[in-house]
Amino acid sequence: MIAMTVKSVTLVAATCCGLLLSLPAAAQFDKAEDAIKYRQSTFALMGHHFGHIVAMATGKAPFDAQAAQQDAAIIETLSTLPWKAFGPGTEGGKTKPGVWKEQEKFKKLADDMAAQAPKLAAAAKTGNLDDLKAAFGPMGGTCKACHDSYKER
Amino acid sequence: MIAMTVKSVTLVAATCCGLLLSLPAAAQFDKAEDAIKYRQSTFALMGHHFGHIVAMATGKAPFDAQAAQQDAAIIETLSTLPWKAFGPGTEGGKTKPGVWKEQEKFKKLADDMAAQAPKLAAAAKTGNLDDLKAAFGPMGGTCKACHDSYKER
Repeated sequence: MIAMTVKSVTLVAATCCGLLLSLPAAAQFDKAEDAIKYRQSTFALMGHHFGHIVAMATGKAPFDAQAAQQDAAIIETLSTLPWKAFGPGTEGGKTKPGVWKEQEKFKKLADDMAAQAPKLAAAAKTGNLDDLKAAFGPMGGTCKACHDSYKER
Repeated sequence: MIAMTVKSVTLVAATCCGLLLSLPAAAQFDKAEDAIKYRQSTFALMGHHFGHIVAMATGKAPFDAQAAQQDAAIIETLSTLPWKAFGPGTEGGKTKPGVWKEQEKFKKLADDMAAQAPKLAAAAKTGNLDDLKAAFGPMGGTCKACHDSYKER
C-alpha cells in the first residue's frame, strides 16, 4: 500500500537541444504545475534556511554553529534541484519569461548559485562565525542576481 | 546586498512543555503561513522524489541506480525537517486538527517516517533493484499511516 499517488514518469526522448533539456529523463515532470510547485518548494526551503544563516551572520540571532551547519547543508542539497523544473512549457509562477528566452544566461546564474552553496556549507562546517559572515554575502549575491533578472516581484 | 528578506528569527523561550515545542528556537517561524509553506514544501519535494522511486520499484520507469540513490538521499535529508513546522498556532493547510490534539500519536508517526527514510537511502545505495523494491513499501506505509490520520483529502 503506497501513500502517494504514483506519478508516471514521462520518459520522453530528449530530442530537443535546449540547454534545459539536457537533463535525465527522470528529472521531467508530468505537468507544468508539478514543475512550478517543485521549484517553488525548493526555493521556499532554501530561502527559509538561508534566512536563518543571514540572521546569525548579521547578529540578529545568536550564532548556533550546529544549526548553521545544518542550514547550509540543506541549502547545498537543494541548490542543484530546482533548475530541472524550468523545462520548456513550464512558464508561470513568479518566473519571468526571460528564463526561457535567455537560457545560457539563466544557466550561468543557476550554476553560480549551485557553485556557491558548497562554499557556504564549507564555511558553516568550520563552526567559526567569521567564516559564515564571509560566506553568506557571496551566496546571497547569487540569489539576488537571478531574482533581479528572472523573478517577478 | 542580500537577495532574500531577512526574516527575524523568533527566539521565544520554550516555556511550554508540548512535544512539538521541544525543538531548537531556530526552528520556529515568524508566521503560521511561513510554517505551513515550509512543511508543504518539504512534503512536496519528498512526494516528488518518492514518486520516482515508486515508479522504478514498480517497473513503471526504468531502474536508474544513481537516480534512485539521489532521490532517496534527498528524502532522507528532508525527512526530519517538516515536523518543526507543526508548532502551536500553525493549524491550517491540509493538516487535520488532530495533529495538535494527539501530539504523541503524531510524533510517533513522524518518527516512524524519519526512521524509515535512512533505510530507504541505504537500500538505494546498494544499487540493487531488489533492495529498493523491499524498502519502498515500508517507507510508503509510514507516509500513508500519517496521511490517513492527519491529512485532508
